[in-house]
Amino acid sequence: MVEAVALIGCKSPAQEAEYLRILSEAMPEERIVPFRALDDAARAAARIAIVANPDPAEVAALPGLVWVQSLWAGVEKLVGAFDRPLPIVRLVDREMARTMAEAVLAWTYYLQRDMPAYARQQRERVWRAHPYRKPADVTVGLLGLGALGTAAAQRLVEAGFNVVGWSRTPRDAAGIETVHGPEGLPVMLGRSDVVVCLVPLTAQTRGLMNAERLSALKAGAALINFARGPIVVTDDLIAALDSGHLSHAVLDVFEIEPLPSDSPLWSHPGVTVLPHISGPTDMDSAAATVAANVRAYRRTGQVPEGIDAGRGY
Amino acid sequence: MVEAVALIGCKSPAQEAEYLRILSEAMPEERIVPFRALDDAARAAARIAIVANPDPAEVAALPGLVWVQSLWAGVEKLVGAFDRPLPIVRLVDREMARTMAEAVLAWTYYLQRDMPAYARQQRERVWRAHPYRKPADVTVGLLGLGALGTAAAQRLVEAGFNVVGWSRTPRDAAGIETVHGPEGLPVMLGRSDVVVCLVPLTAQTRGLMNAERLSALKAGAALINFARGPIVVTDDLIAALDSGHLSHAVLDVFEIEPLPSDSPLWSHPGVTVLPHISGPTDMDSAAATVAANVRAYRRTGQVPEGIDAGRGY
Repeated sequence: MVEAVALIGCKSPAQEAEYLRILSEAMPEERIVPFRALDDAARAAARIAIVANPDPAEVAALPGLVWVQSLWAGVEKLVGAFDRPLPIVRLVDREMARTMAEAVLAWTYYLQRDMPAYARQQRERVWRAHPYRKPADVTVGLLGLGALGTAAAQRLVEAGFNVVGWSRTPRDAAGIETVHGPEGLPVMLGRSDVVVCLVPLTAQTRGLMNAERLSALKAGAALINFARGPIVVTDDLIAALDSGHLSHAVLDVFEIEPLPSDSPLWSHPGVTVLPHISGPTDMDSAAATVAANVRAYRRTGQVPEGIDAGRGY
Repeated sequence: MVEAVALIGCKSPAQEAEYLRILSEAMPEERIVPFRALDDAARAAARIAIVANPDPAEVAALPGLVWVQSLWAGVEKLVGAFDRPLPIVRLVDREMARTMAEAVLAWTYYLQRDMPAYARQQRERVWRAHPYRKPADVTVGLLGLGALGTAAAQRLVEAGFNVVGWSRTPRDAAGIETVHGPEGLPVMLGRSDVVVCLVPLTAQTRGLMNAERLSALKAGAALINFARGPIVVTDDLIAALDSGHLSHAVLDVFEIEPLPSDSPLWSHPGVTVLPHISGPTDMDSAAATVAANVRAYRRTGQVPEGIDAGRGY
């Protein structure tokens, strides 16, 4: 009998059934089994786990595991969670990059075309046009130039926006200006009308957008966080909005999700709260990507390129 | 002395001063004079009027006028307003087409990415993700395939949406399916998840989106009106939203503007009210277009192509 691939961390039985179906269709040669249905022998034999939002204890309970495939791009909860080196392969998926780039463009338009201000005016029955700002007069700063940041840059450039991209190490990205490292960050922040967070959550990016960095933003700038909640310091963000230094924040991710109902963010007039919807995983596309990784491993015995535990992504 | 070009219908002295400056820079060889500053001799001599939102009586008070250049794309208030044939040239401007196409894409994203639902949920502190709909699974119907509709179609196709365009007479538009005439209209309405009005206001389009046409829309469809208010019958629209047949309407134009403060549209949960901002005229670009029209007329004596009084645009 073929060893089982463990599926761990689906949020509901319905989601588990759906993921099992789609993954099994993408790789019918594999036997994919939910963690709870593995017996002791199958637990010992499992070499690969495919994970959504897993309890790390379930992953740790598979002693023969060689690598872990995540269904999301962000895997910060798994990095360093195990007492042995265990490669974590995050999802790098074209369809997710497309969807996230679309979200960046859609909510950049939301800000550029003054949708928050017009919604406020509608509630107050106020008819007032704000001066139109052409994309050519708006600079978008991208915090992160990985697969998602690069795809977002391309859509923004096609739409006529100026784009400045920041990355940890030097990177070239076609058609945009790039800066990097600690000295590049204030340059990007000071030039951007809209800053979009697309960096992974690591020890280095936790709390990155704090009072000091937010004060480096242009007066009247806006912030979009589509990465991970802890990258932005909530209290510092609220202070920057309250002082008028920042005009608006679009937040799709939070320290605690779902966002607790007593969070001041829900009712802040300068904040748009989204329920972590900017870059959903497309399971059909993700299953094809995961199947290709699993097949390459079966064929070559090589673990797909995983995250670097040192840098954290 | 050169005959004056009359400038009519600016909404404020500040706007008049700005328009005079920009138009004079675009065609320094012309003497552009506000209507109120023309003496009797200059009124008699004027051959060209450049108009924003003019009082038709002021236009009619220039007996030697050969043609009228509008600074907007929509000229329905001038069509048939005079007791003699007077060519009205509407603004056909690349920058306006670009801006309007951008607005169509921005507010299509607003609907496709469920921004109205998430705004409602935020007010109620509800964390709930709606299923993501890819552009490839969303059809946008364009009511009108003139300069603005064609530019919008192109942006939507580039963004991955399916597009069906309707026009009065047969038209080809690259990359989209087109239908036309009275028999084509229900076809387009029945296939579209979002319908965008971009037709001129004429006797034929006044009240076009009435109860019958709205009922021809797909259940759950949304409507965007970026054309002119009277194209949509407000009471019928409210009924279609209240019944749940339509999910949402984005309205930038109204029968009366500014929208009266007692309009039920302001507070309707299914309506987004915008203060006529979708396709603002860019005066720098418009002035260049107008200057080219004026120069062609001075050189050839031919009036630029005006609207067709019979069809009304």
